[in-house]
Amino acid sequence: MREVGIIGVGHTKFGALGRVTSRELIVSAASEAMEMSQKGRDDIDAIYVGQLSPDIFEHQMHAAPGIPDYLGLANTPSTRVEAACASGALSVMQGAIAVASGFYDTVLSAGAEKMTSLPTSHVTEALAMCSDNEYEANLGITFPGAFAMMARAHEIQFGTNAEMRASVAVKAHKNAVHNKLAQFPKEITMEKAMHSLMIADPLTLYDCSPITDGAAAVMIVPWEEAKKFDGPKVKIKAFSQASDTMALHDRADITGFDTTKIAGRKAYKMAGLTPKDIDFVEVHDCFTIAEIIATEDLGFFEKGKGGYAVIDGETARDGHLPVNNSGGLKAKGHPIGATGVSQIAEVFKQLNDMVEPERQLKDINFGMTQNLGGSGSTIVAHIFERGN
Amino acid sequence: MREVGIIGVGHTKFGALGRVTSRELIVSAASEAMEMSQKGRDDIDAIYVGQLSPDIFEHQMHAAPGIPDYLGLANTPSTRVEAACASGALSVMQGAIAVASGFYDTVLSAGAEKMTSLPTSHVTEALAMCSDNEYEANLGITFPGAFAMMARAHEIQFGTNAEMRASVAVKAHKNAVHNKLAQFPKEITMEKAMHSLMIADPLTLYDCSPITDGAAAVMIVPWEEAKKFDGPKVKIKAFSQASDTMALHDRADITGFDTTKIAGRKAYKMAGLTPKDIDFVEVHDCFTIAEIIATEDLGFFEKGKGGYAVIDGETARDGHLPVNNSGGLKAKGHPIGATGVSQIAEVFKQLNDMVEPERQLKDINFGMTQNLGGSGSTIVAHIFERGN
Repeated sequence: MREVGIIGVGHTKFGALGRVTSRELIVSAASEAMEMSQKGRDDIDAIYVGQLSPDIFEHQMHAAPGIPDYLGLANTPSTRVEAACASGALSVMQGAIAVASGFYDTVLSAGAEKMTSLPTSHVTEALAMCSDNEYEANLGITFPGAFAMMARAHEIQFGTNAEMRASVAVKAHKNAVHNKLAQFPKEITMEKAMHSLMIADPLTLYDCSPITDGAAAVMIVPWEEAKKFDGPKVKIKAFSQASDTMALHDRADITGFDTTKIAGRKAYKMAGLTPKDIDFVEVHDCFTIAEIIATEDLGFFEKGKGGYAVIDGETARDGHLPVNNSGGLKAKGHPIGATGVSQIAEVFKQLNDMVEPERQLKDINFGMTQNLGGSGSTIVAHIFERGN
Repeated sequence: MREVGIIGVGHTKFGALGRVTSRELIVSAASEAMEMSQKGRDDIDAIYVGQLSPDIFEHQMHAAPGIPDYLGLANTPSTRVEAACASGALSVMQGAIAVASGFYDTVLSAGAEKMTSLPTSHVTEALAMCSDNEYEANLGITFPGAFAMMARAHEIQFGTNAEMRASVAVKAHKNAVHNKLAQFPKEITMEKAMHSLMIADPLTLYDCSPITDGAAAVMIVPWEEAKKFDGPKVKIKAFSQASDTMALHDRADITGFDTTKIAGRKAYKMAGLTPKDIDFVEVHDCFTIAEIIATEDLGFFEKGKGGYAVIDGETARDGHLPVNNSGGLKAKGHPIGATGVSQIAEVFKQLNDMVEPERQLKDINFGMTQNLGGSGSTIVAHIFERGN
C-alpha cells in the first residue's frame, strides 16, 4: 500500500445558503480543490461523495454521478458513501484507500449537505433516523436527547458540569470569529451560553451545533506525486474507522465511545505516533459534551478530565492542544456530509499556513481529525503531517 | 495491488418477505457467507453494505453499523455505499479495492433492500428520485417512462420490437423455474407477456422487474489466501465503474449506455480478456430492453442485434452466451441494494457447480456481471474466473 497525500482543498461558506442544491455546493468546493491542486478534467480518476440523505433533504437519490456530470467529467466513477455525520471523513478515507491501492491515482473526495430547506422539526426527525430506529428514533428519542443522557452520565461520574460545557461553546464561537467560512463568526458570553433555552436537559441551545448548508472537497494523490508538487500539501499519515452498537442501551458505558478509542488507537499505530505528538485537533462537537468526550477518548486528557481541561484553557487557541480552532461544528456549522471533509480541509490549511492570520497556529507538524456518526456508532479518524 | 478472490456467498430468498428488516436479511445472508468461507467473528476486518434507501423504505439511516452490531462483531468498520440500483456491485468493488490495497485482509460485502412495506406508488416515487430530480423526477417521469423512451428509440432505429422484449421476459421466467431463491419461479407464455397491462408505452407489465425484498453477501480475501482455501472460490479478474450524466436529455444517444461500454472496456482490459472469452453473464434487466442493450454495449452482439439474438435463442441457457440464467431481475426479483451482490453470488455458484442441477452451466471458466444505477448513470462491471 503506497503512502498518500492531499494537494488541494475547497470549502464553501457554511450557513443557511438559500436556493442552492448540494450538487451545486459540491461543484463549487470541488472546483476550488481542482484549481488549488492544478488538476483538470482529465486528471481525476474517481470521485467519492459523503452525504447523509440527499434523499430526504432534496428528493435526490443517486446523487454521486451528479457531481462529475456538473463538473464536466461525466464518465468519471462517482461513489456515495454514507455513515451519518461521519459520511464526509469516510469519503476521504475510501478515496485514500483507493489511491493507496494503486487502482486510482487521483481521487476527489467531497462531502455536502443542504439542510435548511426543511423545517427544523423535519431535520431533527430525519437525523434521529441515524440512531437505532427500532429501539430509539421510533420511540421518540432524538440526538439532543441521546447526548443529554451522555452529558448527565458524565456529570454524575466526573463532575463535568454546565460551566464546562458552556466553556466549549464560548471557545468555539471565539475561535470562529476570524473564520470567514463559519456560520456563526461571533463571540458569545458565558452568561448567554449558560442561560439559553433548554433543549434536552442538561443541554441548552448553545450546547448544540446548528443546522447548516455547505460543502467541502479534497484532492488525494500518491505521496510520491504530492511531495514533488509545487503547492500546498499534507501527508495522510493515518486513516481509521470503527463501528459500535447502534443502540446506546447495548453499550457498557455511555460516558465515552469505544469507537473513538479504537479508531484513535488504530490511527496512532498506523502513523507511528502517540497523542503527545499531535499539535492540534478538530473533533466532532455536535454537542459540547461530545468534544469533551472526544478529547478524553483520543488520549489527550485522562478520563473525566476533559471538562476541566476546557475551563483551564488547555484546548484554547493558545493552549497546549488547540481543539476546534476552526470554530468546530458548534460555530463553524454542521452540514452533515461536509463536516468530516471540512475538518480535514481545516487541518490541511493550518499545516500549510493558509488560514486567516488571526487564527493561524504556529509550530505545528501533526493535526488530527475525529468525525462521529450517529450516537458514535461510526467514528472515522485521520492524522496528517505537514508536507512543506 | 494484489489479486483478490471470493470464498463464500450468502443469499436470502427473494420476494415479498413480510415483517423483516433489511438488517435482518443482511445478517442472514452474511451468516451464510461466513459459514461457507469458514470465517468467524474475529476474522472480518471490514464490512461494505450496498443499500439504496433504508432512509425512505425503513426509516433507518446510518444502516451500515447495524450489520456488525447484529452479527456480534460490533466494532468492525462498516460502510454504506449507494449508487441507486448499482449499490450492491459497488459494495463488492469497494471491498475488492480495500482488500487489493492490503489495508484489509477480509471484507464482507453485502447488499439488501426491504421494499414491499411501502405501497407500490410510494416505491415508484422513491425510485424516481434516482434520476435527475430537478429535470426528470420532479417533472413527473418515473423509470418505466425513461426506459420506455429507450425502448421506443431502439425499436425505431433497430427494429427491436415487442416480441423481442417479451422473449427476454419469457426466457427470464423459464430460467428462474429451478432457482429456489427466485421471486417468480414460474414460466409465462409469449401470449401472456405480449398482452399484459401497458405500464409505459411500449413497456408492458412483463417488461418490468418487480418490487422485492432480499439480501446477498460475499466474502472477499486476497487471492493468495483464496487459492489455498479448501472450498468454493472464484478469482475477481476485474472490477470497474463508470458514471454518466444524470439526465437522459444530456446524452447524445439513448439506445445504449456509454457507461456500460466504458465499464466493459475497462473490465476486459483489467482481466486481459475479450467478450469472446466470457462464458455467461448476469446483466441488469430492470426492464427487458435493458438486457438487450446491455448485451450490445458489453460487446457480445453487434449494435442493434441484441433483440434478434434473444429470439434466436443465443442468450438462452443452451445458447452460446447464457444471459441471466438465474432468472435475472425480471424473475429472480430486484431488491435494489441486493441485486448487484446477487448477480455476483450467482456467478460464484455457477463457477463452483453449486446451483440446482437443472440450471447448472457446463464448461464455464469466465462469468461477468453488469449492474446499473439510475437510467445508466452508474454502471459497475465485474469479471470472475473459476478458482477450482
